Amino acid sequence: MSRRADIRVTPVSGETALYAIIGDPIGQVKSPELFNAEFAKRGTDAIMVALNVTSPQLDATVRLFRESSNFRGLVVTVPHKVAVTRLVDRLETQAQRVGAVNAIRKAHDGSLIGNIFDGTGFVAGLKKAGHHLLEKRVLVLGAGGAGRAVAHAVAQCRPRSISIFDIDRERADALRSSLSGLVNAECLPAGTPSAGGFDVVVNCTPMGMRAADSLPVDVGTLRPGVVVADIVMKPAVTPLLKAAAMRGAQAHPGLPMLESQIAQLIAFFEGAEV
Amino acid sequence: MSRRADIRVTPVSGETALYAIIGDPIGQVKSPELFNAEFAKRGTDAIMVALNVTSPQLDATVRLFRESSNFRGLVVTVPHKVAVTRLVDRLETQAQRVGAVNAIRKAHDGSLIGNIFDGTGFVAGLKKAGHHLLEKRVLVLGAGGAGRAVAHAVAQCRPRSISIFDIDRERADALRSSLSGLVNAECLPAGTPSAGGFDVVVNCTPMGMRAADSLPVDVGTLRPGVVVADIVMKPAVTPLLKAAAMRGAQAHPGLPMLESQIAQLIAFFEGAEV
Repeated sequence: MSRRADIRVTPVSGETALYAIIGDPIGQVKSPELFNAEFAKRGTDAIMVALNVTSPQLDATVRLFRESSNFRGLVVTVPHKVAVTRLVDRLETQAQRVGAVNAIRKAHDGSLIGNIFDGTGFVAGLKKAGHHLLEKRVLVLGAGGAGRAVAHAVAQCRPRSISIFDIDRERADALRSSLSGLVNAECLPAGTPSAGGFDVVVNCTPMGMRAADSLPVDVGTLRPGVVVADIVMKPAVTPLLKAAAMRGAQAHPGLPMLESQIAQLIAFFEGAEV
Repeated sequence: MSRRADIRVTPVSGETALYAIIGDPIGQVKSPELFNAEFAKRGTDAIMVALNVTSPQLDATVRLFRESSNFRGLVVTVPHKVAVTRLVDRLETQAQRVGAVNAIRKAHDGSLIGNIFDGTGFVAGLKKAGHHLLEKRVLVLGAGGAGRAVAHAVAQCRPRSISIFDIDRERADALRSSLSGLVNAECLPAGTPSAGGFDVVVNCTPMGMRAADSLPVDVGTLRPGVVVADIVMKPAVTPLLKAAAMRGAQAHPGLPMLESQIAQLIAFFEGAEV
């Protein structure tokens, strides 16, 4: 963000539309900065705040959100993405497929609609960086919430295939099965996965957040030119991205996934007011 | 507020301390502007937002506030000031006397402490404008929540007497009785109250908010030099203040009550972190 974009010239008033990102913990979230810079740029009288919500408070928070007239949108993060699916009135297709929600808006009739933009944000960020997925062989590392979101968004870009690796074989198989009929999908066998034969490798595991983490893929198998993407945002350049760049691969960091989501999320929230 | 003070240079992040003013309706509140200007001036990483909370959501909202690690303070407005008294763990003396709360903070042990600053803010604003209450004969118009808060704060400034008028005689008497032992207090009889014999007249009724409202006191009885204060903030100059100024009285508007409260409220909230 430029210094200019950091400056909010619209003060918060009683009329300001309120948005919150809820999670536990909350200190690490980046949405307030990104949303508020965008609101300021657009001249929208709205503010996004971070609100720590523990699991026992989740139901009450969604109810408060439902009933509050100036509370316009929720962004949902760890550990609530799956739990909120049962608190909304309708799930959009992508949220149904992924089985998780990262944004909730209010429809005209006051009902709550959930959707997930983690994967579509990732794909948009990748495209913005000039990387396309059409006919590509894609390896998705990690079949948890992030992996599911990314794999389902990648599936919509007509790749040649999606291969899935997770140390939890059952979880990998559940994701593969949810993709069947949408894309050519397979699971990799146990053991450190090889990157051989893939055009795009996406790390959707948390490996790389801590200095002591091992690498999520055998980097010795990376060919030059392969796109290696990481959804880990801290550090900005993970050991995986560093190793990939050293081997002539194209490293794609985590932040664009979030940055590209902002426009998608605002459009989703504004759908409530159309 | 100056244009300079309107500009927030500190963007909201995941680490930002969250404060909210809760009420129903909420659009009219002025606290976000005033608090955020003050936070920005002090370089405090905190934000005050307005949050519409209906009465059925009040308990859950206070519970969420209690459990949320970055939610640091609540300012409470109409219609919740009396209802929240039973949702906190401890009431400060002023809140006990007034029977209402307009601010809740968290103690070290996580317990919730309620206090009310409407009256003390009013008195501070009056003093800042050069008007003192020592040995003054004070007429308080209206014995509702605002009247109770103002009368109890005035009582602490050693006035000669406090006279109370309310069309609801029982309410006036309840306020008089709560002041007994603290100050020389009496109720005025039924009928339009006269300002004769008073040094300070305070309108704590909502009369003056709508153009069609009649005046809360017989303005023909105002002597020159008398201080006439109004806690109505919209319009800034009420018909009462206009009539008072025309008769040579000293008109004192509603905004200083709120402006003077901000420093008191921030000190109260920061008490939680000492």
